[in-house]
Amino acid sequence: MSRNLLLISTSTTHGTGYLEHAEEEIKALLQGKSSILFIPYARPSGISHKDYTDKARVPFEKWGISVTGVHEYDNPEKAVREAEAVFIGGGNTFVLLRNLYQNKLVQALQERVNKGMPYMGTSAGTNVAGKTIGTTNDMPIVHVKTFDALQLVPFNINPHFQDPEPNSKHMGETRDTRIAEFHHHNRQPVVGLREGSMLRIQGDRIRLHGPHTARIFLQSEKPMEFKPSDDFSFLTEAY
Amino acid sequence: MSRNLLLISTSTTHGTGYLEHAEEEIKALLQGKSSILFIPYARPSGISHKDYTDKARVPFEKWGISVTGVHEYDNPEKAVREAEAVFIGGGNTFVLLRNLYQNKLVQALQERVNKGMPYMGTSAGTNVAGKTIGTTNDMPIVHVKTFDALQLVPFNINPHFQDPEPNSKHMGETRDTRIAEFHHHNRQPVVGLREGSMLRIQGDRIRLHGPHTARIFLQSEKPMEFKPSDDFSFLTEAY
Repeated sequence: MSRNLLLISTSTTHGTGYLEHAEEEIKALLQGKSSILFIPYARPSGISHKDYTDKARVPFEKWGISVTGVHEYDNPEKAVREAEAVFIGGGNTFVLLRNLYQNKLVQALQERVNKGMPYMGTSAGTNVAGKTIGTTNDMPIVHVKTFDALQLVPFNINPHFQDPEPNSKHMGETRDTRIAEFHHHNRQPVVGLREGSMLRIQGDRIRLHGPHTARIFLQSEKPMEFKPSDDFSFLTEAY
Repeated sequence: MSRNLLLISTSTTHGTGYLEHAEEEIKALLQGKSSILFIPYARPSGISHKDYTDKARVPFEKWGISVTGVHEYDNPEKAVREAEAVFIGGGNTFVLLRNLYQNKLVQALQERVNKGMPYMGTSAGTNVAGKTIGTTNDMPIVHVKTFDALQLVPFNINPHFQDPEPNSKHMGETRDTRIAEFHHHNRQPVVGLREGSMLRIQGDRIRLHGPHTARIFLQSEKPMEFKPSDDFSFLTEAY
């Protein structure tokens, strides 16, 4: 498997510009490429595909990489099949996954990524790279026929992972509780990626980048904290 | 319409026991009744139907009302059709709604409630009383064939409604942003019910109880704060 992925928790960390905190990793992912296809389907705050693509274009152009939006093509599937690299941005995960199915991009993305085309995602775009969207934080604002996602990796991701606020009086479930409930109905591992964290996947090798540890949840086990220097290879096995 | 509903944001507020903060309103809802049917399908933290029903039983028995769990009946639909009153507890909204459909309880609940059977919900049980589950905070840990809910009221509810933390560095969407995204795809009003708040609905009259205002979101309008003394009747009209 010649996978080449960068799965980023959030596009923008507190106090830094759009994609800025991941510049080094993005440049490493896209080494030797001069263009990237942007998929704006997740439409954060409901912005248009054009406006979202214009926003995504800014940092890449600074880095010498041209950006086109998949909505600019008459045949989005063909655009994916011919892209040098693909970037799926954040927003609403349900809206995103529904549009990926409606535009018949799921299989095309799987085939291209499995043959080595660089893929990067932020937030919802990282979520859909997993096995299902079952660990999204988003509201189910549109229905999707299945929660099965792109399955570029055999585990689930929870982006924007948050630790409980120590002094909170809020009674809603913590992220840990929600993921424990997920494991009553699903068995794949879940990686809680804190803001500023990202996973770099090359073939079967997984590396954690960014300043934080990642919280990993296996069915029927206590959550574990993994450091960037730890071995994550168990995530690509079994399941 | 002889509706008689109590839709509670959370079963337990910070510092009070299970259902304690809503005792007065629950007693008013169940006046003259001696039993209630509990639907434990939402299984918070994955607990069993039996354990959840045992938990729910405690406060009601203190108030002189007997509790049976719907899972104790061979024919759950018949149990709903013969119940004096129904209570759906919180947990995971997707698991709950899927079980309501699988056990063929949706139509039975709608018919009984529209004929005046008292209904109370907390959290997920309040969410499913709305038009759809599109404004739940829960993770989509199981797939449901439709997000259409019980539609006991013609609007959506967001339980555990939270205002943004003023000093937060978290970049995930605020509740306001999530509901604004919902309104790019759906037109029904959304009531943000803070913890400690509840809606009492009798026929077409809606009253807000509890110590807080409720935040109401209409499509294409700015969110509005409504006090307990305000008129909410617009929520039962149109749409």
